[in-house]
Amino acid sequence: MTLLTDFGTSDNFAGVMKGVIASIAPEVSVVDITHDILPQQVKQGRWVLGQSWRWFPRGTVHVAVVDPGVGTERRALAVEAAGHFFVGPDNGLLSDAVRMEKAKVRQITNRGWMLKDVSATFHGRDVFAPVAARVASGGRFAAAGGVVADATYLGPMEPVRTGKRFWTGEVVHVDRFGNLITNLTPAGVPDLLARPAVFKAGFQQIAGLSATYGAGKPGEVIALIGSHGGVELSVNCGSAAGALGLVLGSPVDVEIL
Amino acid sequence: MTLLTDFGTSDNFAGVMKGVIASIAPEVSVVDITHDILPQQVKQGRWVLGQSWRWFPRGTVHVAVVDPGVGTERRALAVEAAGHFFVGPDNGLLSDAVRMEKAKVRQITNRGWMLKDVSATFHGRDVFAPVAARVASGGRFAAAGGVVADATYLGPMEPVRTGKRFWTGEVVHVDRFGNLITNLTPAGVPDLLARPAVFKAGFQQIAGLSATYGAGKPGEVIALIGSHGGVELSVNCGSAAGALGLVLGSPVDVEIL
Amino acid sequence: MTLLTDFGTSDNFAGVMKGVIASIAPEVSVVDITHDILPQQVKQGRWVLGQSWRWFPRGTVHVAVVDPGVGTERRALAVEAAGHFFVGPDNGLLSDAVRMEKAKVRQITNRGWMLKDVSATFHGRDVFAPVAARVASGGRFAAAGGVVADATYLGPMEPVRTGKRFWTGEVVHVDRFGNLITNLTPAGVPDLLARPAVFKAGFQQIAGLSATYGAGKPGEVIALIGSHGGVELSVNCGSAAGALGLVLGSPVDVEIL
Repeated sequence: MTLLTDFGTSDNFAGVMKGVIASIAPEVSVVDITHDILPQQVKQGRWVLGQSWRWFPRGTVHVAVVDPGVGTERRALAVEAAGHFFVGPDNGLLSDAVRMEKAKVRQITNRGWMLKDVSATFHGRDVFAPVAARVASGGRFAAAGGVVADATYLGPMEPVRTGKRFWTGEVVHVDRFGNLITNLTPAGVPDLLARPAVFKAGFQQIAGLSATYGAGKPGEVIALIGSHGGVELSVNCGSAAGALGLVLGSPVDVEIL
Repeated sequence: MTLLTDFGTSDNFAGVMKGVIASIAPEVSVVDITHDILPQQVKQGRWVLGQSWRWFPRGTVHVAVVDPGVGTERRALAVEAAGHFFVGPDNGLLSDAVRMEKAKVRQITNRGWMLKDVSATFHGRDVFAPVAARVASGGRFAAAGGVVADATYLGPMEPVRTGKRFWTGEVVHVDRFGNLITNLTPAGVPDLLARPAVFKAGFQQIAGLSATYGAGKPGEVIALIGSHGGVELSVNCGSAAGALGLVLGSPVDVEIL
Repeated sequence: MTLLTDFGTSDNFAGVMKGVIASIAPEVSVVDITHDILPQQVKQGRWVLGQSWRWFPRGTVHVAVVDPGVGTERRALAVEAAGHFFVGPDNGLLSDAVRMEKAKVRQITNRGWMLKDVSATFHGRDVFAPVAARVASGGRFAAAGGVVADATYLGPMEPVRTGKRFWTGEVVHVDRFGNLITNLTPAGVPDLLARPAVFKAGFQQIAGLSATYGAGKPGEVIALIGSHGGVELSVNCGSAAGALGLVLGSPVDVEIL
């Protein structure tokens, strides 16, 4: 099982979820993807989840909780797709899972699978962890609840074409090194890898793709294909986020020459 | 087994404790509750531990190390209570465990259960981890050391009644979202849930309890019953700690109308 | 298996490595030593690894990734030494392992042990995790690749003798409490424990070794033998790093009287 949340690690939230899981399914091992999604940034959580789940074995249950609507009427979902399971709130966090081919999407309504008392503020503990533990320990997936056909979908992550040779993407994640990870991928920008490209970000232009992080002079902003398969802006021995003044959601343009 | 410390995760302290545990009890799985108790804040550690242990299965060994007195004469304790085990320094961190009904409290003195060399600075590694590993792998609890009748107790966590309809509580934890978690609970403040209440914190008054985090207007301070079962002050899309200027230990008053 | 990286925990890097490991060796348990080595600080990573590995059981595979040269020609290493295994880049991070008595040092070249696609930016996922998983699950160590005789070695960690009674060491780690951990050890400075010593750090002199963290007056800088067995500068209820203005690599002198 994996956990991806915006709970941080300075509180007991993730630990308590693991306690609930261990109480129901002691044989299940739990891996933290991260608990440091920016608070309530559903879109960032969706992106990180999309970059993570496929590295785990088939049958893994992925619990994702970035949940500003906890305690309101928003639904809770359990999804089976591509041989994996996904459990989380119906707010777009599971956008990619719910649109996968042959995805089975169910609303979690089975009270017998939740903790006895369900708080209004911590469904990670009271709903998502126990449901995921039941799925991971062999519970029948269909018992989670009824089928849902209209799960929240935040739209494609692809960049927008803004001209014949122009696309506008955005920063979808800022990593711990200050690298700016964008949604400019070969799938969204044809010829990205085949032809020369110029990137525009903040007040800078970056010409071409470098091969490695170490390719730039110290302080220089370079673009390269990162480990997620798309364009990443990076500064050798520094932070591209700091150098360019960009944050989550900032636009990054590309012109294919 | 669980770990709760103020060691942070940027050093190898928690990792080394897990190495010691794996060396003695390789079959035991270890869950981090948190390593981000504020440095040496025994009282905060006690509160977080009190909010965490019951979510784990019976038989779990909880290792808690917030230990400003390491290397001095302060005793080391092992406690069996409510079907769980608790291991840590005798400085009040285990206050709740030692006062539980039928709690068995022992001073750790069995040198054979510790590492061969016991440093003056890292009993998490040299004393608490190996002792916990022995308990978790079936070691006889009574072998830890002799019974202690006067374990340190920091007093009740309850708020103080300051008038017929008035109680003064305090901030016992600030979570990663800036929510201010208080010791104002239905147990300590009768009628908290039954009658209208007004909270006074910093220079603000907050009228009534909201149902969910999302109930307030952006920026507005609201009060609600948090996942720990007590009053939490929160700002929708913001930090209550920042908005009110409160920190760990700050007073929060309530008037029951 | 253990992980030691500079990846932080706010991204999915460590989680994805664990996914790769679980896909190959689901029975292997993984412990985080730390992911908060300062970005690209190979020397700090080497020191923390040197302080950590021996606390784990024999047979443990230690994966260390602080890898500014990822994607360049730098080699990847697998080392068997002292009954443990070490996997990481050939940049000095494994300096201590490669010089251990009877160490077997191999360059990782077996493409069948790596992921099918090897990126230029994330060998933790594509090379080191899968190779470590194969070693941990019983793969033949010699199959990793050919023997290497000239693995990168960053030199001894010992302090420099600067006079008959004088040694100059340095800060090799700053822990979460602001304690300054130095390479001044009894092995490098004879008589450190036997005779009176005066330490010079920043603009302060510290006379003698204290027994415990609590020995100093609040705010006072003291020196003591830390849990790593060497000299640590500490401030009771405060940060020695802050008080002295020292950082990783800052010199600390000692005079043996």
